Amino acid sequence: MTTKDGNRAGRRGPYAKSEARRRAILDAAHAVFASRGYRGGSLQDVADQAGMSQTSLLHYFPSKSDLLMAVLARRDEITETANPADMAEGLAEVVFRTAKYNEDIPGVIELYTVLCAESLTEGHPGREYFADRFARLRQSYARRFTELQSEGKLRPGVDPQQAATSLVGLWDGLQTQWLLAPDEVDVAGSLRGFFDLVTLP
Amino acid sequence: MTTKDGNRAGRRGPYAKSEARRRAILDAAHAVFASRGYRGGSLQDVADQAGMSQTSLLHYFPSKSDLLMAVLARRDEITETANPADMAEGLAEVVFRTAKYNEDIPGVIELYTVLCAESLTEGHPGREYFADRFARLRQSYARRFTELQSEGKLRPGVDPQQAATSLVGLWDGLQTQWLLAPDEVDVAGSLRGFFDLVTLP
Repeated sequence: MTTKDGNRAGRRGPYAKSEARRRAILDAAHAVFASRGYRGGSLQDVADQAGMSQTSLLHYFPSKSDLLMAVLARRDEITETANPADMAEGLAEVVFRTAKYNEDIPGVIELYTVLCAESLTEGHPGREYFADRFARLRQSYARRFTELQSEGKLRPGVDPQQAATSLVGLWDGLQTQWLLAPDEVDVAGSLRGFFDLVTLP
Repeated sequence: MTTKDGNRAGRRGPYAKSEARRRAILDAAHAVFASRGYRGGSLQDVADQAGMSQTSLLHYFPSKSDLLMAVLARRDEITETANPADMAEGLAEVVFRTAKYNEDIPGVIELYTVLCAESLTEGHPGREYFADRFARLRQSYARRFTELQSEGKLRPGVDPQQAATSLVGLWDGLQTQWLLAPDEVDVAGSLRGFFDLVTLP
């Protein structure tokens, strides 16, 4: 308890101010990259939006690609804090809950969608992040589908690895359509339809 | 026959030259936009790649957004010429055949993926094209799934509209993963898995 209070008091000092500015830059970069892309949004745009000079900004993030990586890490943090892994929960439940949560944060989804596709372009600093993310997700989902299979809860004929790759792809592809036509596309509903097909009650 | 020959002769003249330059610009723009995005690739980059001045280029395409729309129309042309609609063919067959064909044109798929997500950004001239394309695809697939349903070939419980939206999303999402990990992701195979789930033999 004492330690906790001590920490809290400490955060009111210069460290807290520095953290607040760092956070302000990340929020500004998030908004700029989501609405203009990484290549289309300049450091000056981010500095303007954060209300500071580009020189001050570079004190916190020495390069534009450092800033990008920090924004992506912050995105992961937002997603994971809002959706802490609960081991008792089934894969389908985690997926629906996250998909419903995502409906309220279109800006975060847009950032993800825009940067993911942009990372395919020549020399983009985000490419490895997205390649790793996909590989990790496929692996993690495949493990869960294999567990379901061994519990007799996967529809016969469904391959756990292919189901994992398809779930990752379906989710991303649905989000893109949803961003362009939010009233016509129900991401969580379609993901539920996918689970109804691949799993058994 | 005479008319045909007449046309052919005519295409050797100034019109043919103009057409060839127009095509060279489109090919250059395709390469530049696929590797750098629409915002990241400049008209100067396109002119350089096509081996002409920016002034000459602007004679053919008065603005960068005109060039983008022409590149997207050209992409549709490539795809449709290679995969002419065959009414006798089932939806699943058209999808697999197109997916297999796409494996040989990663540059075209990359262009599509990069521009589609980039079109979500503020004031992007491609946004309407992609929104329309998705709406049209969803409608067309939903019609085909409804036909399958009336023939008793859709799995009971599957909603034709949701299956259509999911097919569009799945295909796009798989392509993105494939572009980042071509050896690990089998787009056509996963689409086949989807059809195995939603349709009945």
